[in-house]
Amino acid sequence: MLISPDDTIVALSTPAGLGAIAVIRLSGAEAFRIGNDVFKGKRLSLADSHTIHFGQFFSANEIIDEVVASIFRGPNSYTGENVLEISCHGSSFIIERILQVLVASGARPAKPGEFTLRAFLNGKLDLSQAEAVADLVATETATAHKIALQQLRGVFSHELQLMRDQLVRFASLLELELDFSEEDVEFANRQELQLILHELKAKLEKLIDSFFLGNVLKKGIPVAIVGKPNAGKSTLLNRLLNDERAIVSEIPGTTRDTLEEHINIESVPFLLIDTAGLRDSQDAIERIGVERARQKMKQASIIIYLFDPNEVHLEELAKIVAVLKVDNPGTSILVTGNKADQHEIEVLDAKYSSIGRVVWISARDDQNIDLLKAELVRFVNLEKWNSGELLLTNSRHVEALTKALESVNSTLSLMDGQEKSELLAFEIKNALYNLGLITGEVTNEDLLDSIFSKFCIGK
Amino acid sequence: MLISPDDTIVALSTPAGLGAIAVIRLSGAEAFRIGNDVFKGKRLSLADSHTIHFGQFFSANEIIDEVVASIFRGPNSYTGENVLEISCHGSSFIIERILQVLVASGARPAKPGEFTLRAFLNGKLDLSQAEAVADLVATETATAHKIALQQLRGVFSHELQLMRDQLVRFASLLELELDFSEEDVEFANRQELQLILHELKAKLEKLIDSFFLGNVLKKGIPVAIVGKPNAGKSTLLNRLLNDERAIVSEIPGTTRDTLEEHINIESVPFLLIDTAGLRDSQDAIERIGVERARQKMKQASIIIYLFDPNEVHLEELAKIVAVLKVDNPGTSILVTGNKADQHEIEVLDAKYSSIGRVVWISARDDQNIDLLKAELVRFVNLEKWNSGELLLTNSRHVEALTKALESVNSTLSLMDGQEKSELLAFEIKNALYNLGLITGEVTNEDLLDSIFSKFCIGK
Repeated sequence: MLISPDDTIVALSTPAGLGAIAVIRLSGAEAFRIGNDVFKGKRLSLADSHTIHFGQFFSANEIIDEVVASIFRGPNSYTGENVLEISCHGSSFIIERILQVLVASGARPAKPGEFTLRAFLNGKLDLSQAEAVADLVATETATAHKIALQQLRGVFSHELQLMRDQLVRFASLLELELDFSEEDVEFANRQELQLILHELKAKLEKLIDSFFLGNVLKKGIPVAIVGKPNAGKSTLLNRLLNDERAIVSEIPGTTRDTLEEHINIESVPFLLIDTAGLRDSQDAIERIGVERARQKMKQASIIIYLFDPNEVHLEELAKIVAVLKVDNPGTSILVTGNKADQHEIEVLDAKYSSIGRVVWISARDDQNIDLLKAELVRFVNLEKWNSGELLLTNSRHVEALTKALESVNSTLSLMDGQEKSELLAFEIKNALYNLGLITGEVTNEDLLDSIFSKFCIGK
Repeated sequence: MLISPDDTIVALSTPAGLGAIAVIRLSGAEAFRIGNDVFKGKRLSLADSHTIHFGQFFSANEIIDEVVASIFRGPNSYTGENVLEISCHGSSFIIERILQVLVASGARPAKPGEFTLRAFLNGKLDLSQAEAVADLVATETATAHKIALQQLRGVFSHELQLMRDQLVRFASLLELELDFSEEDVEFANRQELQLILHELKAKLEKLIDSFFLGNVLKKGIPVAIVGKPNAGKSTLLNRLLNDERAIVSEIPGTTRDTLEEHINIESVPFLLIDTAGLRDSQDAIERIGVERARQKMKQASIIIYLFDPNEVHLEELAKIVAVLKVDNPGTSILVTGNKADQHEIEVLDAKYSSIGRVVWISARDDQNIDLLKAELVRFVNLEKWNSGELLLTNSRHVEALTKALESVNSTLSLMDGQEKSELLAFEIKNALYNLGLITGEVTNEDLLDSIFSKFCIGK
């Protein structure tokens, strides 16, 4: 297990690679004693918290670097322990040497997430906040950032705390009834309890429901762009991205790998997926690309089927759209005709009217691209997102909330059947247990291990 | 030109990439005013120097991250100006957002090396120390590190200052003589001046001489390992490195690119160069590798010619060694027989005695590898290095010192010819000018541009 609170741990906290500076972080009881041994300039163990000191980092009598030391005295630090941060020149050689000296002076290389684990163990963060730290570092979209920061700042934890407080009170009253079981009194008002359980049920269901939207918005709503070779898929992707991310060529089958790009349209994050041409190919590498395209389509929430009206005629298109709908139930299909600059749109609309809605664009000439973007946004139900409500993105949380909901439902059923306090108390404690798993009021080593081992080292 | 001291500049100072934290640095008159606008927690403009403050980084009303702000009040900062360092979560999304907000608040993105340029302009570092900062970040060997740190700490600058002080005194005395030229007096004692010029000459020559060794030691002494395909070059490299860096296979021509690896043998840094097999090849890619091998040999200080006595017989070996010596004048050739485990060493020695010294090893069985290492060290003249003397590694410095030496030599010639004070003063000022170029007492925009534009951004 990760926990060994007597150790002082050390790690590089900034990314590896060439940079102006690098930051090495020490946390633990011995942090300042080790600092005294290696740092010449100020006796760090005597320095005030939240102060900065310029000096030299020494290995025995050899200067390794001129550094800046920052002092954070526990509990007023990230981990809650004494923390020393050493900012040195960003050379991998110097970083290696400093880490070696610190380890030789008694520090232990930190395991992934160990600084944040200590912050959790010392009550600086609850478990869902600790998980938000990892989410925040991995943030790639504005939405993921917003959700992770909200979680780090304890908005979700506070919501859970309110639920737990109500349940704890009732659990205590029900326990009290057990002590007085001979007398058959009710300390816990059943009507009030039912009311609160119904409220909880609604809250839990809403949170669980938010997971799908939260997760989709975190990663971006997946949009697969599919179509025959040379339909103009890569050109369309480039047009949407306004850059030259994909290699566009005249040779059918140029796009072999799938490309994924994040874009925001009217503040909605999308994950655009360009796919290899959907056709049988003799080229083994390209064949893998085609198979991946089919896989990507399965993951998409929206499929843009792009076709060239010069190449794909009405009957073939009708068949393709029908097959796409059968193969991808629940996915929105946006039929999009490219190279519309070579035709009259009215003529095209009339000719393809039996297909239903077709968006006519010219990827090359930037024609109707805004219309296509508007169609994409129209497909997304944004009510929940715009309300600024709490969105879940962590499957562990959803699992725990789902179990808590089961217990709440069971309690309600038991109350309908006029069940005794004992069983009610048991179910309510079960709900409390599962809510507690999220923030870490209830925890175990395996759970902590599985959460923190996914962190990067130095966090 | 880079200089615009009224601007407040901003850049990411830690490497790009995923990390626990990132540090963004602001420097300039407006640093704390901008800090006030974006940071909620403490009014940064009122904070003491060298203090640390936890708070939130805001863009208007939106929280971007929870951050730690470090305050350095000029002149007690890296640049000598007010410096604010913001330590945020290491997400590229957050870093981008914070940089955007700081620029929108009035900071300007820093150019490469601009923080260090400001440190120079504000007298925090002289020019040779500023150059040492870039060297230190790029450090890859213990020697390069030692040389750069020595230079950063001003050891070289101090030496130059001593030289300049002596020359400045004489230049002033000679100027004085010009004022009294009618009276034909000598304020500057000619004998003393000659003595000092001879001392300077010796010092300058020694420093210029140190460049070759300094540069070689900085990068590692280049050792090319060459030989026919399957002589065992990659196996030997791996053996020397004690790891599996090169792909070793039974197929002749496996090593297509040249591989370079740093190793220290008895504290001497070597740069080992593995090369593609030296033979004509039908394979175009491999042919490029072979050409590179010949190029690499030209740059090597030592060539290990590795051969398999089963494959290369005495006459052929004699020819190869002769050609290597002709092609690489001044390079030490270390003839090394591999696969010696299959033979009696005495027999081999007798058979190849006409070649001169041959080191017999078995790369596969780790036989005599220590002997080979000892031979490598023996080739290097270590007297200068071990003495802890100043070593130069910067060609700009050597160029300036060479010009200063020319002026010192001219002054000495002029004195032999009993020249007038005027010409002596001119030459001494010339020497002073060139010494001043190194530390930046004398400078110009082009020079600063060419030095600082090579820095990384954020330094």
